[in-house]
Amino acid sequence: MNKTRRNFIASSVTLAAGTAAAMATPAEPQKGKYPLVHHVFFWLKNPGSVADRDRIIEGLKTLRKIEAIKELRIGVVASTEKRDVVDNSWGVSELMFFEDLAGQASYQTHPIHQQFIKDCSHLWDKVIVYDAIDV
Amino acid sequence: MNKTRRNFIASSVTLAAGTAAAMATPAEPQKGKYPLVHHVFFWLKNPGSVADRDRIIEGLKTLRKIEAIKELRIGVVASTEKRDVVDNSWGVSELMFFEDLAGQASYQTHPIHQQFIKDCSHLWDKVIVYDAIDV
Repeated sequence: MNKTRRNFIASSVTLAAGTAAAMATPAEPQKGKYPLVHHVFFWLKNPGSVADRDRIIEGLKTLRKIEAIKELRIGVVASTEKRDVVDNSWGVSELMFFEDLAGQASYQTHPIHQQFIKDCSHLWDKVIVYDAIDV
Repeated sequence: MNKTRRNFIASSVTLAAGTAAAMATPAEPQKGKYPLVHHVFFWLKNPGSVADRDRIIEGLKTLRKIEAIKELRIGVVASTEKRDVVDNSWGVSELMFFEDLAGQASYQTHPIHQQFIKDCSHLWDKVIVYDAIDV
């Protein structure tokens, strides 16, 4: 590849990256592609056990292979300011985005998800699920 | 711009778009840019009031102007399968992503956020906040 062509491509990539950045303007409505939000909080049977927490985290990572899950974030409690309204009693969270209700339903029965429950459900005491749809 | 250059740019943009798509592989770890997840659920004082719900939604939309909020989704209960673990008793949710703890802290005291609380807090009965950080 000659230098001129390299320059063309380099500047075009920059242009495209700029366009992509402009399209992803912070705080813009995200409604559309993956509007179904599935947020799950796990309370550990042994709340102090980092080993148990990490086993759930490892288990959650296996879910990444499920195609219906369009984005997966695994979280632990953030050290934000302690306030009455903030629930920081849980241990691990999973935040997933789906295209639609059918995608979420297919995830529920997916063998990898079932295997995760089989392998890890003895480690948690309580689970709360929030399913939201973008407005 | 001549045709050859247009072609160069078009194919380069396609190349860049392809690269961006590859980088955003579904279900890949999202740790990095905006790892702080702030998810708030509001229970309405008048749970059946669509008008009250919509006023909160309109209020939440004003938060989009706060720069520290890198992504904001506003949600209502999704009609996923009813299960014991699913809490569908809330009315409106806000899901925000921040760069870091400082960003989230600055949001808490931001005048637009304070105005939202002033305008809308009489409409809700209960609030639960979950602050998670990606692992």
